[in-house]
Amino acid sequence: MGARRGHDVLERLRSRPAQVWHRGVRVQDVTTEPGLANGVRSLAGLYDYQWQHADLMLETDPRTDLKVARSFSIPASQAEFERVGAALLCSSEYSMGMMGREPSYLNRAMSAYAGAAEFFGSRERAYGDNVARYHAYLRSNDLSLTHTLLNPRPNRLAGPARQADPLVAAHVHEERDDGLVIRGARMLATLPLSDELMVFPARLPDGPEESARYAFAFAIPTATPGLKFICRDSVDYGFSGFDHPLGSRFEEMDAVVIFEDVFVPWERVFCYRDVNICNAMAVRTGALAQMAYQVVCKNIVKTEFLLGLASMMVDGSGLESFQHIHEKIAEVWVNLTTLKAFKRASEADARANEYGVVTPSWDPLDAARNLYPRLYPRMVEIIQQIGASGLVAMPTQADLEGPLGEEIRHYYQAARLDATERIPLYRLAWDAAVSAFGSRQVLYERFFFGDPVQMASAVFKDKDRSASVEKVRRLLDDSHQAGR
Amino acid sequence: MGARRGHDVLERLRSRPAQVWHRGVRVQDVTTEPGLANGVRSLAGLYDYQWQHADLMLETDPRTDLKVARSFSIPASQAEFERVGAALLCSSEYSMGMMGREPSYLNRAMSAYAGAAEFFGSRERAYGDNVARYHAYLRSNDLSLTHTLLNPRPNRLAGPARQADPLVAAHVHEERDDGLVIRGARMLATLPLSDELMVFPARLPDGPEESARYAFAFAIPTATPGLKFICRDSVDYGFSGFDHPLGSRFEEMDAVVIFEDVFVPWERVFCYRDVNICNAMAVRTGALAQMAYQVVCKNIVKTEFLLGLASMMVDGSGLESFQHIHEKIAEVWVNLTTLKAFKRASEADARANEYGVVTPSWDPLDAARNLYPRLYPRMVEIIQQIGASGLVAMPTQADLEGPLGEEIRHYYQAARLDATERIPLYRLAWDAAVSAFGSRQVLYERFFFGDPVQMASAVFKDKDRSASVEKVRRLLDDSHQAGR
Amino acid sequence: MGARRGHDVLERLRSRPAQVWHRGVRVQDVTTEPGLANGVRSLAGLYDYQWQHADLMLETDPRTDLKVARSFSIPASQAEFERVGAALLCSSEYSMGMMGREPSYLNRAMSAYAGAAEFFGSRERAYGDNVARYHAYLRSNDLSLTHTLLNPRPNRLAGPARQADPLVAAHVHEERDDGLVIRGARMLATLPLSDELMVFPARLPDGPEESARYAFAFAIPTATPGLKFICRDSVDYGFSGFDHPLGSRFEEMDAVVIFEDVFVPWERVFCYRDVNICNAMAVRTGALAQMAYQVVCKNIVKTEFLLGLASMMVDGSGLESFQHIHEKIAEVWVNLTTLKAFKRASEADARANEYGVVTPSWDPLDAARNLYPRLYPRMVEIIQQIGASGLVAMPTQADLEGPLGEEIRHYYQAARLDATERIPLYRLAWDAAVSAFGSRQVLYERFFFGDPVQMASAVFKDKDRSASVEKVRRLLDDSHQAGR
Amino acid sequence: MGARRGHDVLERLRSRPAQVWHRGVRVQDVTTEPGLANGVRSLAGLYDYQWQHADLMLETDPRTDLKVARSFSIPASQAEFERVGAALLCSSEYSMGMMGREPSYLNRAMSAYAGAAEFFGSRERAYGDNVARYHAYLRSNDLSLTHTLLNPRPNRLAGPARQADPLVAAHVHEERDDGLVIRGARMLATLPLSDELMVFPARLPDGPEESARYAFAFAIPTATPGLKFICRDSVDYGFSGFDHPLGSRFEEMDAVVIFEDVFVPWERVFCYRDVNICNAMAVRTGALAQMAYQVVCKNIVKTEFLLGLASMMVDGSGLESFQHIHEKIAEVWVNLTTLKAFKRASEADARANEYGVVTPSWDPLDAARNLYPRLYPRMVEIIQQIGASGLVAMPTQADLEGPLGEEIRHYYQAARLDATERIPLYRLAWDAAVSAFGSRQVLYERFFFGDPVQMASAVFKDKDRSASVEKVRRLLDDSHQAGR
Repeated sequence: MGARRGHDVLERLRSRPAQVWHRGVRVQDVTTEPGLANGVRSLAGLYDYQWQHADLMLETDPRTDLKVARSFSIPASQAEFERVGAALLCSSEYSMGMMGREPSYLNRAMSAYAGAAEFFGSRERAYGDNVARYHAYLRSNDLSLTHTLLNPRPNRLAGPARQADPLVAAHVHEERDDGLVIRGARMLATLPLSDELMVFPARLPDGPEESARYAFAFAIPTATPGLKFICRDSVDYGFSGFDHPLGSRFEEMDAVVIFEDVFVPWERVFCYRDVNICNAMAVRTGALAQMAYQVVCKNIVKTEFLLGLASMMVDGSGLESFQHIHEKIAEVWVNLTTLKAFKRASEADARANEYGVVTPSWDPLDAARNLYPRLYPRMVEIIQQIGASGLVAMPTQADLEGPLGEEIRHYYQAARLDATERIPLYRLAWDAAVSAFGSRQVLYERFFFGDPVQMASAVFKDKDRSASVEKVRRLLDDSHQAGR
Repeated sequence: MGARRGHDVLERLRSRPAQVWHRGVRVQDVTTEPGLANGVRSLAGLYDYQWQHADLMLETDPRTDLKVARSFSIPASQAEFERVGAALLCSSEYSMGMMGREPSYLNRAMSAYAGAAEFFGSRERAYGDNVARYHAYLRSNDLSLTHTLLNPRPNRLAGPARQADPLVAAHVHEERDDGLVIRGARMLATLPLSDELMVFPARLPDGPEESARYAFAFAIPTATPGLKFICRDSVDYGFSGFDHPLGSRFEEMDAVVIFEDVFVPWERVFCYRDVNICNAMAVRTGALAQMAYQVVCKNIVKTEFLLGLASMMVDGSGLESFQHIHEKIAEVWVNLTTLKAFKRASEADARANEYGVVTPSWDPLDAARNLYPRLYPRMVEIIQQIGASGLVAMPTQADLEGPLGEEIRHYYQAARLDATERIPLYRLAWDAAVSAFGSRQVLYERFFFGDPVQMASAVFKDKDRSASVEKVRRLLDDSHQAGR
Repeated sequence: MGARRGHDVLERLRSRPAQVWHRGVRVQDVTTEPGLANGVRSLAGLYDYQWQHADLMLETDPRTDLKVARSFSIPASQAEFERVGAALLCSSEYSMGMMGREPSYLNRAMSAYAGAAEFFGSRERAYGDNVARYHAYLRSNDLSLTHTLLNPRPNRLAGPARQADPLVAAHVHEERDDGLVIRGARMLATLPLSDELMVFPARLPDGPEESARYAFAFAIPTATPGLKFICRDSVDYGFSGFDHPLGSRFEEMDAVVIFEDVFVPWERVFCYRDVNICNAMAVRTGALAQMAYQVVCKNIVKTEFLLGLASMMVDGSGLESFQHIHEKIAEVWVNLTTLKAFKRASEADARANEYGVVTPSWDPLDAARNLYPRLYPRMVEIIQQIGASGLVAMPTQADLEGPLGEEIRHYYQAARLDATERIPLYRLAWDAAVSAFGSRQVLYERFFFGDPVQMASAVFKDKDRSASVEKVRRLLDDSHQAGR
Repeated sequence: MGARRGHDVLERLRSRPAQVWHRGVRVQDVTTEPGLANGVRSLAGLYDYQWQHADLMLETDPRTDLKVARSFSIPASQAEFERVGAALLCSSEYSMGMMGREPSYLNRAMSAYAGAAEFFGSRERAYGDNVARYHAYLRSNDLSLTHTLLNPRPNRLAGPARQADPLVAAHVHEERDDGLVIRGARMLATLPLSDELMVFPARLPDGPEESARYAFAFAIPTATPGLKFICRDSVDYGFSGFDHPLGSRFEEMDAVVIFEDVFVPWERVFCYRDVNICNAMAVRTGALAQMAYQVVCKNIVKTEFLLGLASMMVDGSGLESFQHIHEKIAEVWVNLTTLKAFKRASEADARANEYGVVTPSWDPLDAARNLYPRLYPRMVEIIQQIGASGLVAMPTQADLEGPLGEEIRHYYQAARLDATERIPLYRLAWDAAVSAFGSRQVLYERFFFGDPVQMASAVFKDKDRSASVEKVRRLLDDSHQAGR
């Protein structure tokens, strides 16, 4: 036990198959299924990678003396927290940010919840113990998590209770002595190729009484009976790593989750019926900040990827003589440096929260998550603008290795790249900026933390702007006085 | 003879196979080849469609009394010109603008050239006659054209003659009594699934002497020996019309063209060695304006498509309660109305050119072609913003028709759409805004008329701004006087 | 009588002084008051200018045989309508669009109302006759109009009737046998330096009964007792035409209008209590279209001004070697060409409305008015970007003519301009893009037709998008069929 | 001696008058001159303010035991550096960032130079000693500095030596035993109302030999004979603090500087003829970073000002019911938080440079200075969008206090503000976003660190992007391997 390696990951997924549906059929084995297997293999690869970067990514659990993933850490000091940051950056580099839901993300959430276990405490149920125990279980078994956050809301202005059919959203269908029975649907579990599913509380804007049956948090194995993952169709179309260098490796998949009377034992329940706890959970425990910090780390790496990619295209094609190219590269660099500043500022002002868990300062991370949905699509546009029509002129590996190979090598060179360098580079740019894989990444970043318009409304409502107002008032007073 | 129907198109492509390469192999029959056949079928369908809309799309050729495509018209009156416009709009609606290079586009070019045949005249060669004869041949046989415009330029600051290897670009390798022998490459023939290939002069910025061997215009059958089309890999991945409603039908394909000592008989040559003729051709004959007019018609239809699509999503999901949605729909409507105004203004001021061909006024079309590369990507972004995470939650036809069909119908409804309406609608949005097909359309529009930055430089250099300057001078004088 | 000259204008304003308040005092004579007099002088100058351009700007009124301003025309043919357009363009060039509310604007409105006089007809009152008679009076006396359109609405979500104090907005305080008595305020009459005030119906979203006392249209002399114009403080700070070439001439002023029991005789009332007539008036009579057409003409000229100004700066400072400068100039050119296309399209499809008045087609004008609030501020930004820090380095006329004149001439040259050319040019750019006058123009354009966000909502709600939707449906059907 | 108070400042400016020219006349006394005196008074006020905030803004100079301004500190520890930051924030709040060139800015530069005095050392001249001595002199006398950085370059592509007239730019006209004689012009000294003038090296792109006579750094009293400051015309038009709450107080003025054979003694010369030293000075000594850090502090305060102002308008007018208003406020908040993150990150990674001076980390500051020229104009646009036409409807203090006072109080209320609160608030918004003062601030921010396009080119050229490139290469290799 402790930190796993790739073959452990594959073995477990093979032996405990979740009910995953893809293109109309139930997948027998996600480790071999076309469209899914490559993503699973990469996920497994990440577990080997953590051993290759053990100094950054692993640590010794003092309680068990096991080597465990540092992403499960509950940092008690600023130094410990910064080591988590280094692990998160390193981990993201494995896919250069293209597997946004690599396990580190939810590991940070569960660690924050466990660190604040007493928040979940209740007289009736051992919710706090459940959380702590579950985190310890995940850590020592190094399991991977997916989660599902949103209720389906055909009517976007109401919560689940006030939809035309209030039974569409996942809800408690039955309360039993030994646990809950869940029925209904939840939206968009990314990385359904995980061992466990975490079901976080969705925002519950309707009244507390009517919301009660949607108010829960729990976690169960993805292989639990009655639990179904309906995947969108894969964007890994089966092409080679040369032709689709990203899509052939990093399809993490998104799925709608259907609970067909799924049983959840009490020991896996973290809260229930308490709408206040549900709505406060992510903020009060610091889980949101810990997750947002992981996301900033990931986005730093993802932006570096685009900076490197753009630089290679500019350099390879001799575009440095065009001044507008400078502006575009500078824009990406400024974005990267901005993200790094958000990370650094959140670390520099990290403090122990009320539960003693060192938590990054929130405002820089909140700014980052409001900004990135605009930055990422723009940078992908820059890749298109740099690549231009060259992006739709690239042949495949088979062409390069086939009868026309010599002609292709002759005719497809760029200023400082021969065709065998240029073609893979531009195919990478295609996969980042044109393919379905690349565009799904754009969508992912646009909506990662929710509708950007509603996020802006939250900033408007939540941020205390009174100090700024006071300063303006003071200036007005001074000016009126000065004028006398 | 005269306007063809679909089966004629398929038959001809089958019987005269061009040398088309795709994914490393030579395609035996484009009408059956996976990845290409669907596009070919749609091209053929367009020829049936013209007969269904014969009143708009066909006319009687007075010389031959044949029914021919109106897109071959050489309009002598404003009314005739506006009828061409109606035909172009109707034709674009077949694919809602998604086949940008449907034959109408180049038909307009060849018609302009033929109308200005004397421009090509030369003492030595019957170039003018060649042009006129070729146009008549195309029209009465209703053949489809692709063209190839750009020289490969590893060094983008120089023309073909001043590249490291001046033999990369297609050039006259040998002059023979009966014609020219061409060797080298040209970039990006879209719709290589055509009957004929037109080779337009590329811009020749190097000196006239060294440019001479690149200075030519001609047209040959795509099935000419030595002529090779190397396709990018298809974005039609073989899915159904339900799953990929655009990509499964409208993959028109882009190809690099390689001339391996291709022989071009003199009667198919339209100019040669005359750099001035080459550089002036598109503007002086009105071909550029006629093509740009077709493009505006196509873009009107394409924008209507996005307006309709966005409207259906907004209406189906009940998004009209969000004010920012109004702004987005209004933006698309303003774009559509702007394009229509460009079209209308270019018609209202259409005039016979020096060769008697009624030619649309240029400035509105020039503005349109500078603007659309910014409008289209933004509208695709709007589709993403409206569709949001719903775009990555959609299952396939197989899911809907498979064992989970009932559950999917239950859980995937939108505010005013049931799942069987919503899923195809959102899959269409995916194909327009997320799939590789959709993103290739974005690239196509971004770079259709060339690098937007260089197009802006051309506007800066070419437009006469002196009247505006004079008015400012006059105002300054008046103000100075008034102040006295 | 008939078209006036400048001295007539001044004479009338002098002899019939309205109650205009500026900086806390009642202005005795607007023709001499600092901050206002220059604007008045320019207004007068425009009446001389119309005689200098009599061929375009004047026409003979067949009923009176007088030369009258063509902006009062009620066009019965397309040719007549296009002559109005030529007059409007010519008129705007007087101030290069900087006097947005030059009389032509409201002349077009009153002409449309008069042409549709029967729309106003009522059994009880001769409203229609009033409108027609008033228009004839204005035309034969060539009077200038201001108007006031908006009710004060401290609560922007409600109409005047549902404000905390419903008596703030101008309302009928008393109905008398001989007319109405008005009390309350209206917002923002631009060009309060006019002979007459038109009071248009504001939008009345509250219920018809409670809205009745705000439901009226009438026109009265600006010099009517009880009528007060409270001006914002002038942006003409008294500097010379050299130093402030725009602000020293074209301050047209904005004012809040207060009705202190103002009496309006019935013969000057055009409608009353009929909320439907009020809300439909501008659209049904074509007045909105005629006004929007004038605005497009003005905006064409204003954009030409910015194009000329930018061109002179680029040329004078030798900036053509910077590629981004090309993009900026091209952007302005595209904007100009777009506006011209809107104008041309609205003319080409102009049709007689139900009252026989040739009215421009609406959609291009509606697109124009939704677009220009974004275009103008952006172009002013371009002027700033081109002028750069040079804009804050310019000395005054007094400096140039003072003891340091020689040194200034030595040190302030640009690449192709000596200091005596450069300084006035950059001062003009300052006045267009940096001064309070310039920024007020930006505000004016941003909000000319109202809040851009609410305008977008109107587009969303009003435009029929069903044809686009049908086309998308057809495409979906075809794709589903094709896939079978 | 030591930190001054306001009356000391006024007294010194009165007794040592520089040759300041404004509107064609030589100003006798800047402390009383209309257009300048208010700015001088505010400058003086800042010196009183530092005593009111002595805990933050002053410190004890251990060598002299005097209380001196903390902005002259040469920090030897991170804690000391962060105290400087607190002083800079506090100082900027005096004008809410509207006096961009308050003395702190150049104090930071001179402190960095003094801390790195040995950098200036030379065998022949005591340049290093000069720098250190000058800094000590400034600090113990608490003098204010202006500087002048740019050479006039009619031809923007060349340096001063290669202009048509190479004698236009300030250059060494004569080398004497006791010092240098300077002739020519320099651009844009902001705050010419200072005690001393620093002349920094401008960038010298021409050859080292021909550039030598432009290669110098020195500082002299503004009252030095032959030194002339030619001001642009003031944007303080003499209105009250009520009417123009910013322009009436914070006009810091910009001037062109003319050296008419100005003598500079050797002890005030910091370098000469050494083009390398000149070009490296700002970066190597950390002066650029120290200045940029002050600028970020100032911009944080300026952004807070806009956030407070926008919030007061939204709240006062009840605009929170419009969702787009949320987005605009959120945008300003994100900007503010981004700037704070840049500051925090630059502090968290501050390190002693090679001269032992604690210097903030550069990249976050460099990103900040590339970003703010886009953020500030956009935020000013937001103020316009929120204020809308209300901004041009505001009367003056005289109106409010005059005969119409009661009516104005009645009619000018907003949702939650009575007229006496609303009018000053909107006048402040006018002065920030519409007046010449406000627009000059926009220009100031746009071009503070130079042409944004050339700054982007510098980022492109200077930043090492090779690590990003390596990561992309690694990913490509992995993908190619994975595909096998």
